[in-house]
Amino acid sequence: MQGQAQQQAYDRGITIFSPDGRLYQVEYAREAVKRGTASIGIRTADGVVLAADKRSGSPLMEPSSVEKIHKADDHIGVASAGHVADARQLIDFARRQAQVNRLRYGEAIGIETLTKEITDHIQQYTQVGGARPFGVALLIAGVEKGTPRLYETDPSGTPYEWKAVSIGADRAEIRDYLEEHYREDMDLDAGVGLAVEALGEVNEEGLSPTGIGVATVDVETEEFSQPSEEELADILAEHDVLASEDAAADEEPEEEE
Amino acid sequence: MQGQAQQQAYDRGITIFSPDGRLYQVEYAREAVKRGTASIGIRTADGVVLAADKRSGSPLMEPSSVEKIHKADDHIGVASAGHVADARQLIDFARRQAQVNRLRYGEAIGIETLTKEITDHIQQYTQVGGARPFGVALLIAGVEKGTPRLYETDPSGTPYEWKAVSIGADRAEIRDYLEEHYREDMDLDAGVGLAVEALGEVNEEGLSPTGIGVATVDVETEEFSQPSEEELADILAEHDVLASEDAAADEEPEEEE
Amino acid sequence: MQGQAQQQAYDRGITIFSPDGRLYQVEYAREAVKRGTASIGIRTADGVVLAADKRSGSPLMEPSSVEKIHKADDHIGVASAGHVADARQLIDFARRQAQVNRLRYGEAIGIETLTKEITDHIQQYTQVGGARPFGVALLIAGVEKGTPRLYETDPSGTPYEWKAVSIGADRAEIRDYLEEHYREDMDLDAGVGLAVEALGEVNEEGLSPTGIGVATVDVETEEFSQPSEEELADILAEHDVLASEDAAADEEPEEEE
Amino acid sequence: MQGQAQQQAYDRGITIFSPDGRLYQVEYAREAVKRGTASIGIRTADGVVLAADKRSGSPLMEPSSVEKIHKADDHIGVASAGHVADARQLIDFARRQAQVNRLRYGEAIGIETLTKEITDHIQQYTQVGGARPFGVALLIAGVEKGTPRLYETDPSGTPYEWKAVSIGADRAEIRDYLEEHYREDMDLDAGVGLAVEALGEVNEEGLSPTGIGVATVDVETEEFSQPSEEELADILAEHDVLASEDAAADEEPEEEE
Amino acid sequence: MQGQAQQQAYDRGITIFSPDGRLYQVEYAREAVKRGTASIGIRTADGVVLAADKRSGSPLMEPSSVEKIHKADDHIGVASAGHVADARQLIDFARRQAQVNRLRYGEAIGIETLTKEITDHIQQYTQVGGARPFGVALLIAGVEKGTPRLYETDPSGTPYEWKAVSIGADRAEIRDYLEEHYREDMDLDAGVGLAVEALGEVNEEGLSPTGIGVATVDVETEEFSQPSEEELADILAEHDVLASEDAAADEEPEEEE
Amino acid sequence: MQGQAQQQAYDRGITIFSPDGRLYQVEYAREAVKRGTASIGIRTADGVVLAADKRSGSPLMEPSSVEKIHKADDHIGVASAGHVADARQLIDFARRQAQVNRLRYGEAIGIETLTKEITDHIQQYTQVGGARPFGVALLIAGVEKGTPRLYETDPSGTPYEWKAVSIGADRAEIRDYLEEHYREDMDLDAGVGLAVEALGEVNEEGLSPTGIGVATVDVETEEFSQPSEEELADILAEHDVLASEDAAADEEPEEEE
Amino acid sequence: MQGQAQQQAYDRGITIFSPDGRLYQVEYAREAVKRGTASIGIRTADGVVLAADKRSGSPLMEPSSVEKIHKADDHIGVASAGHVADARQLIDFARRQAQVNRLRYGEAIGIETLTKEITDHIQQYTQVGGARPFGVALLIAGVEKGTPRLYETDPSGTPYEWKAVSIGADRAEIRDYLEEHYREDMDLDAGVGLAVEALGEVNEEGLSPTGIGVATVDVETEEFSQPSEEELADILAEHDVLASEDAAADEEPEEEE
Repeated sequence: MQGQAQQQAYDRGITIFSPDGRLYQVEYAREAVKRGTASIGIRTADGVVLAADKRSGSPLMEPSSVEKIHKADDHIGVASAGHVADARQLIDFARRQAQVNRLRYGEAIGIETLTKEITDHIQQYTQVGGARPFGVALLIAGVEKGTPRLYETDPSGTPYEWKAVSIGADRAEIRDYLEEHYREDMDLDAGVGLAVEALGEVNEEGLSPTGIGVATVDVETEEFSQPSEEELADILAEHDVLASEDAAADEEPEEEE
Repeated sequence: MQGQAQQQAYDRGITIFSPDGRLYQVEYAREAVKRGTASIGIRTADGVVLAADKRSGSPLMEPSSVEKIHKADDHIGVASAGHVADARQLIDFARRQAQVNRLRYGEAIGIETLTKEITDHIQQYTQVGGARPFGVALLIAGVEKGTPRLYETDPSGTPYEWKAVSIGADRAEIRDYLEEHYREDMDLDAGVGLAVEALGEVNEEGLSPTGIGVATVDVETEEFSQPSEEELADILAEHDVLASEDAAADEEPEEEE
Repeated sequence: MQGQAQQQAYDRGITIFSPDGRLYQVEYAREAVKRGTASIGIRTADGVVLAADKRSGSPLMEPSSVEKIHKADDHIGVASAGHVADARQLIDFARRQAQVNRLRYGEAIGIETLTKEITDHIQQYTQVGGARPFGVALLIAGVEKGTPRLYETDPSGTPYEWKAVSIGADRAEIRDYLEEHYREDMDLDAGVGLAVEALGEVNEEGLSPTGIGVATVDVETEEFSQPSEEELADILAEHDVLASEDAAADEEPEEEE
Repeated sequence: MQGQAQQQAYDRGITIFSPDGRLYQVEYAREAVKRGTASIGIRTADGVVLAADKRSGSPLMEPSSVEKIHKADDHIGVASAGHVADARQLIDFARRQAQVNRLRYGEAIGIETLTKEITDHIQQYTQVGGARPFGVALLIAGVEKGTPRLYETDPSGTPYEWKAVSIGADRAEIRDYLEEHYREDMDLDAGVGLAVEALGEVNEEGLSPTGIGVATVDVETEEFSQPSEEELADILAEHDVLASEDAAADEEPEEEE
Repeated sequence: MQGQAQQQAYDRGITIFSPDGRLYQVEYAREAVKRGTASIGIRTADGVVLAADKRSGSPLMEPSSVEKIHKADDHIGVASAGHVADARQLIDFARRQAQVNRLRYGEAIGIETLTKEITDHIQQYTQVGGARPFGVALLIAGVEKGTPRLYETDPSGTPYEWKAVSIGADRAEIRDYLEEHYREDMDLDAGVGLAVEALGEVNEEGLSPTGIGVATVDVETEEFSQPSEEELADILAEHDVLASEDAAADEEPEEEE
Repeated sequence: MQGQAQQQAYDRGITIFSPDGRLYQVEYAREAVKRGTASIGIRTADGVVLAADKRSGSPLMEPSSVEKIHKADDHIGVASAGHVADARQLIDFARRQAQVNRLRYGEAIGIETLTKEITDHIQQYTQVGGARPFGVALLIAGVEKGTPRLYETDPSGTPYEWKAVSIGADRAEIRDYLEEHYREDMDLDAGVGLAVEALGEVNEEGLSPTGIGVATVDVETEEFSQPSEEELADILAEHDVLASEDAAADEEPEEEE
Repeated sequence: MQGQAQQQAYDRGITIFSPDGRLYQVEYAREAVKRGTASIGIRTADGVVLAADKRSGSPLMEPSSVEKIHKADDHIGVASAGHVADARQLIDFARRQAQVNRLRYGEAIGIETLTKEITDHIQQYTQVGGARPFGVALLIAGVEKGTPRLYETDPSGTPYEWKAVSIGADRAEIRDYLEEHYREDMDLDAGVGLAVEALGEVNEEGLSPTGIGVATVDVETEEFSQPSEEELADILAEHDVLASEDAAADEEPEEEE
């Protein structure tokens, strides 16, 4: 109980250090990320894949309004996990930065450059008073000069580059699955397959085409694209993770905040 | 009791994260929404319907002054549930955004565009210090390029798109009723009927024409319109939810804050 | 005791939500309203009536300095209940808005327009930090294009339109009396009569001409006017609520804050 | 003890409402007024009187430096009770307002106008954060267009007009005395007499010419004037409240803050 | 213990009122004054005297650097007691005000005028948030149009005029001594004598010329002047308060903050 | 337990002193440094060496995205330990300062100059409210007019110059190793060797070329350079600290915050 | 324990007074000074001496980077004790003031003038909110118009002038030693000797030339100068306080914050 009382002392006000050097508000923001449904990113030889669990709590909700994967620029997709309204702020920020880059330098923004502009923005909310940290993690996927790149941003404002990564719920299980099955030389289709298999691994009832989102950026076209609902159904069936109709009707996940 | 004490630690100051990654002030604002009387939105094949429980606590109050449904632009209606004064602020904000859009681009604002401008505004009040979140949810209903759209905003600043949805008191019961009876191909009159039946379901004594509000936006006209008191009485009678005079006189709901 | 401790947690700082979605500072401001002496508004077929209990705690105080009814513009009267100094701020605000409207549009401000400008102003003090809510309710009475209008503003910033209404002390008893005796087709004199009778109902010793205030706005003249002390005495006598001299001398109400 | 603990919860920060709708910081400021020595105002048929208890704690202090009565303009006197340094701020404010009025409109400021400018100023310190309320009450006495006026301001920023009034220590006893002996048709000399008698009533050892302050504004001259020490001694003797030398030497009141 | 707990509640934040109408931060600042060594002011028929106990804690400290008496303008001296660094701020403020007066009006600033400018400045620090009160009292002594004047300022910002006064440690004892021995018709030399005798009264080991400071402003010259160390030794000897060398060596007062 | 309670009192708000004169928030920021993996700096006769432990928690993470060593200018390298997002802010600051120096003075910035500009920046975050201290330490290594320089900055904003130094995890052990083996006359290759040996000393399983970072600034070229992965492997093998493949696969350090 | 609890109440927020009139944050800043290693100042007939204990915690640290003695202007040296990063801020402030004086008046700044500008700056941090006090004391030594001057500044912002003084660790012991051995007529060399002897008195293992700093300002040259390491070794040997090599190697003082 003492540990608990002590902990309370450090998380009331603005973001400050605890005696063991941790920033509690940032760590609690990480919990907000874990409360969000999972998003996955996979870098393959010929492009990058984003996939996200976007089941909604009601059949009356428009699946398209569950925002998990966004196009930040022609060549960049962003997937999120955590506090949805915070994610929207960061994605708006990302789009503005991408536009400014085109206007100022006449060229598409680099994936690493964009990521670091976002993480610098996030960091400010962890050091200067008067605001709380962002309760969201992002996966930033794109192609830069013919090379696929995949970055993660976390609530502390640290950028990480990954070959394959998962954010949000079930992070540990999905990471294990990715570490076991990922191969750097897999092609984009194999990447999409691995992503939906990983999502299927933590959804026992299987996945429905409206309950997940998938996007890719191809090294050839350098264009963000998303499969149609029919193509998604085929992919899910092909990888044996397509939910039966009954299972889909029963799904009742917690609504994300 | 410990859980309670722990919780108290996180909800005193500005909006900050709790150890499990939740924003208590936002969740309490959601409770303010639940304290408001119900509002319902239904998207049909040929338009969108808004309906709201607007009973007042006294026969001396002007029913028209219980503000639950507002016209935000020619083609957009907004229903609210929760803190009334907060709703007024957001609706003023919505009207200004709609006007600015007409002035700047010479055309009517899109329903999704307006919704996201509102949710971005709401989100700011959950992250930056010096103010509390908005204690209100909105239903934003309109027609955009011939297509009916129906959105919800919540106190976190998340936008959701719905086929049919309820905010405020009795949300769970009304949602069950809507899920059971909603059909995507119903026409506008059927939508109005479903809305008043759903409201009737949670008002045992029935509804009075002055105790509810109804509005529609038709795909043909793209115009916000509200039935007259007589038309409303006919609709209620037709759907068997018209209160007897005695019941209406007895109704004594809690005044909304 | 636990409930008490819990409650304390939410009312210390700025206006924030409690776990059940209430704004305590706003509710406490409503208590400040109840601590004020009563004001009554009655809308009749040919005008609006304001009446107020303005007994002072001492025979040495100038009755005219107990401010309960104010002229906001030629065609608008305002009665208040609650924190007197706060009321003065809002009435100054109302007067400035009315003047600005005349200067800008060359016409008298609408009663609903003025009411909503005041409630928007009040709402800001409940959401943005650095100030407390206004501890006062207002009745705004006037004639707009030949139609009598009567509005109430409360400390949350919600506007209500009424046929007849009471704010301040004894609100429940006076409301019961009004609901029982109010008729929409009564004329202005009957309205004044109902108002003083309602005040008399909660003042066992009767009323004195200097202990109450009365004002009317007539649909004909559209002018705010107040009866003389003699006229008031006649009205009180006519409605059988005139205090005997002895009773008046004994009255010793609490001074309003 | 519980009541005490509860009370503590509301008086720590800025001026906020308690659950029963009171502003504790304002009420505590009223206690600061009561800690000050008494000041009295009396309005007579031909002028206004101010009188104040200004005994000092030491024979070595210059009696003239105990500031209780101030000239705010040629035709206006102000007496104070409470926190002396706060009184000085308000009196400087009053003097500036009076000067501005002369410059802007070429005429002397009205007594009611000045009072309300002061109370508006005081009210701001009770609603907006970052400062405490003024711990002082003022009596503002003057002649306006041939009519004597007497106002009180309190720490909440409420203006009151009086025929005769007392602020500061022993308010209740002095008020009783005034209510019993005041007559509206008394002349200025009788008013001065009543004032010193009332002060004498609560000072058993009697009053000394240096231990009180007296000022009048005459309807004829419309000029603020103060009797000389000799005149004061005569007045005190005439009204039988002149202290014997020994008593004066023994007086040892608490120093005012 | 309860009283203590209650008291703690009011002295944590900015300067606010306690339930009995006191400003604790101001009262604690008065304690800071009492912790300082004593300063004395005496007004005589032909000038004003300032004297101060300025013993240092070490023989290695330059006596001249123990700042107790300052020249604020040619005709004004200031002695302080309390927080030394705060005193320096106020004396700088006083010097600037005196200079501004000479520049603006071409004449020396009045003693009362200067005192009230200082107390107004001090008062601001007791009412507006974001700073603490000044922990120092000043004696302001000068000659104005041939008349000697002596003022005290305290941490609340109240000005007092005195014939003879003491601030800082042993205030009560020194005041008793002054009340007993002061005569208004004493000349400047007698005033200096009384001052050093009063200081001697509370310093059993006697005074050393370097351990005290003395200054006078003469009505003839209207000039601030300080006796030399030799002259001071003669004065101390003459009044029988000169310490023996041994005593001086033993003196070990607390360092002032 | 008392000590603990007392400590809690000082670390809640902004950076303030504890009774024993310590700045807890700064000390807790030092704990954040210790939570980071180690970085080492070594100054040799012909250049400066930086080396850092940059193992990641997952084989799927891009080793290059674990940022421990940065080029601040052509002739300056910076290694960090602690909060990664904070380090990025300081390195951006350092780069801007270096650029400004080139623009303003047309020459490369001095190592000491840059270090002190950084520490002044850090200090501000420990004294002025509204932000927390930086949770990171830096090693700043470069060549200035032919002389190698090596500085450390800590969270208090103190600059230290070192011959050889370690920050982050295992500081004490690495320091002992460096003190034992460092010689001022060692050449750059020997410096690199000592650095990797010291890192190997606290990594029992050995080091992998992707799990560490190494950089040098040579006195000849005055250029920041980093060995290739192959060169690093050779260096690790040469110094007998190259991990076997199995060991590398097992490494699972804590992720840095 | 009660005393302790009471004390905690006053040191949490900004710098405020405790019930006994003390400024705890200032007193805790004084503790930060005591945690620093000692600095000594000695004023002699022909100049001023500064000496400082600047042992570092590691043989690998560059002794020159332990900043204890600084040149503020050609004719002024400053020694510090306490929080090193704070000292740097004040010394930068001092240098800027000295430069501004040369630019504005074309002459070197006076020692007393500079000291008081610094203490005024320090005082602001103890009275105005939003920052903590400086945790450092300075000795300011220089020659002004041929006269040697030696000042101390403390965290309250009080200036003291000394013949000989010590700040930081072991202040009491060193002061005793200085009081016993100081003579006003000693020459600069004797002053340096006394300073190193005093430092040796509290360092049982003796002093090393790199473990102390010494500086002088000569009345002839009016130039700040520091002996070479060889000269220092000679001085230490001459005064019998030179540490043996072994002792020096063993020294392991606490690192200063």
